[in-house]
Amino acid sequence: MSLDRTAICNYFLSLQDLIVSKLEKEDEKKFHVDSWERVAGGGGRTKVLLDGSTFEKAGVNFSDVSGEFSEEFAKQIPGDGRAFTACGISLVLHPKNPFVPTVHANFRYLTRGNRAWFGGGVDLTPYYPFREDVIAFHKVWHKACTTHSDVADYDKLKSWCDEYFHLPHRNEPRGVGGIFFDYLDKNLDQVWSFVQECGNSFLSSYLPIVQKRKTQFFSEAHKEFQEYRRGRYVEFNLLYDRGTIFGLKTGGRIESILMSLPLKVRWLYDYQPTIGSKEAELYEIYLKPRDWAREV
Amino acid sequence: MSLDRTAICNYFLSLQDLIVSKLEKEDEKKFHVDSWERVAGGGGRTKVLLDGSTFEKAGVNFSDVSGEFSEEFAKQIPGDGRAFTACGISLVLHPKNPFVPTVHANFRYLTRGNRAWFGGGVDLTPYYPFREDVIAFHKVWHKACTTHSDVADYDKLKSWCDEYFHLPHRNEPRGVGGIFFDYLDKNLDQVWSFVQECGNSFLSSYLPIVQKRKTQFFSEAHKEFQEYRRGRYVEFNLLYDRGTIFGLKTGGRIESILMSLPLKVRWLYDYQPTIGSKEAELYEIYLKPRDWAREV
Repeated sequence: MSLDRTAICNYFLSLQDLIVSKLEKEDEKKFHVDSWERVAGGGGRTKVLLDGSTFEKAGVNFSDVSGEFSEEFAKQIPGDGRAFTACGISLVLHPKNPFVPTVHANFRYLTRGNRAWFGGGVDLTPYYPFREDVIAFHKVWHKACTTHSDVADYDKLKSWCDEYFHLPHRNEPRGVGGIFFDYLDKNLDQVWSFVQECGNSFLSSYLPIVQKRKTQFFSEAHKEFQEYRRGRYVEFNLLYDRGTIFGLKTGGRIESILMSLPLKVRWLYDYQPTIGSKEAELYEIYLKPRDWAREV
Repeated sequence: MSLDRTAICNYFLSLQDLIVSKLEKEDEKKFHVDSWERVAGGGGRTKVLLDGSTFEKAGVNFSDVSGEFSEEFAKQIPGDGRAFTACGISLVLHPKNPFVPTVHANFRYLTRGNRAWFGGGVDLTPYYPFREDVIAFHKVWHKACTTHSDVADYDKLKSWCDEYFHLPHRNEPRGVGGIFFDYLDKNLDQVWSFVQECGNSFLSSYLPIVQKRKTQFFSEAHKEFQEYRRGRYVEFNLLYDRGTIFGLKTGGRIESILMSLPLKVRWLYDYQPTIGSKEAELYEIYLKPRDWAREV
C-alpha cells in the first residue's frame, strides 16, 4: 500500500503556514521566509523569527527532499536500496520569557525503496514549569493518541519520547517529554490520519501556555538559568538527535537544520541549583519521567 | 619499550600549575580548583576560571584515568584488549575580548595492552585576527617541531591539524590551525621529548597575544560576532572532537569534558558577513589553511 505523497507534502506545507500565522499573532515580529533547493534533490521552505517580543528564536521548517543515502548511513535505516525521499515539518520555538517552555515538533514521511513510514513527535522543555501547563500539554497528546488507538498506543509513544529525549552523558531527560514515534509502516492510512491529528493538535497543546505566561515578570537570574538550560538542548541536538544527524549526513541545508539551536546559550561550570529553589524544583519534580497526562 | 608513566603524569601536573599561575597574572580572578576521582578508575584535577577580567571562561584540566573501553568504542582505537590508561593535560581558553583568540591545547599519553602512544595538539581560533599574531603563533610550533624533526615533521603535523579541526557540515576550518598528532607510538623517548617541548612552548605561543590585545576597545557588535563564532566551537566539539567523544564514551567527568564550551554562545540564522568588513576578512583570509609559519 502506498500513500499519495503529494497530498502529504501539501498537508505539511499548509500546516507550516497555519502554525506560523498563529505564532505571528503572539509576536511583534514577522517570520522571515526562505525557499531553498537542495543540490542533491528537492528543497524546502524555512520560516524563521529572531529576537522577537515573544520568541527569541522560532523556526518552522518544511522540507521535501530526495536522494541517496551514503553507504554508511544506509545501514542505520530500515529498508533496502539507497534511494530515499523525505518530507515533513519540523519546528523548534525558543521563547524569550523563561516561564514559557521551549517546544519541538516534527512530523515526517519517509520512503526507501518499496518501504514507507511515518515518524515524528512533540516534546516540551520548560525552564520554570507550571504543573498545570505540563499536565495540559500531555493531555492534548494523550487525546490525539486515544482518538487513533488502532495505531497509536499512548503509553508506548509517551515512553518512547522519554527514552528518546534523554541525555545519557547527564543521565537527564531533555524536558518533560510528550510523544515520539518512528518507523510506523503498518496501516499507513490510519497512521496518516493519526499524523494529521497530531499536526492539528500542536497549536492547542502549546499556544495556551504562551498566552498565559509570556507577560510574566522575569529577572536577569531567570534569564541566565534559561540560557544555561538551553545548553542541554544544544548538547542533545548535536550529540544525539536523529533528525539533526540525518540532515547533516544527507547533505541537508545546514541553516535549516541548526535553526533548532537557541539564539543565546551559556555553559557554566558544575552548576548546582540551590536547595529548595525553583531551579531545584525543575530537576527534582519535572526532569523525571512521569505520567502527567493522567494527573489532575 | 615503555616509558615511566608516573614521570609523564607528574610533568603534565606541574605544567598545569605553571600555565594556570601565568594565566592568573593576566586576570583579576583566580582559578577554582576541583580534584576528583573517577568511579571506574583514576581521577583528575580541574582548574577553571569563569567570568574573569581577561578570560570569560578558562579551563585547564589534568586527568589520569584508567579503565576498560566499551566493546564498540574499542574498535575505533588501535591496540588490543579493552584495558586502557590515559593521562594528559587539556586546556581551552575563551577570552573576553574578541580581539584575543580562543586557544586549545591538549597533550596525552595513552596505553592499551602493550601499546603506548602520545597524542596532542594546539590550535588557535581568532575572531578578529591580526596577521602578525597568527604568524607568531605558528612560528612557535614550527620551531618546536623542527627542534625534534626526528619525530615531528612540521608540515605533516600542521596539515593534520588543518584536517582535524575542520567542520565538514560547514566546509570550514575551526580556526587558523596549529599542530595536531595522534597515535605516535614509534621512538617513544624522542616523542616524549617533543611533547615536553610542546608543553613548554604553549605559554610563549599564546600569552604575548593576550597581553597585546586584551585591552583593545571592543563594541557590542564585536562581542556578538565573537559569540556567534563560538557556536562553531560548540558544533565542532560536540559533533567531531575525539577528546570529547573519548570522554563521553568512557564515562569521563562531564563537567571537565564540557568545560571546553564557551560561557556565552549565540546561534543566528544564515549569518553572512558584510562585504569588505573585518568579519568578512576572517572568512576570506584566515579561515583558509595557509602556511603561516613561513610568512613574514
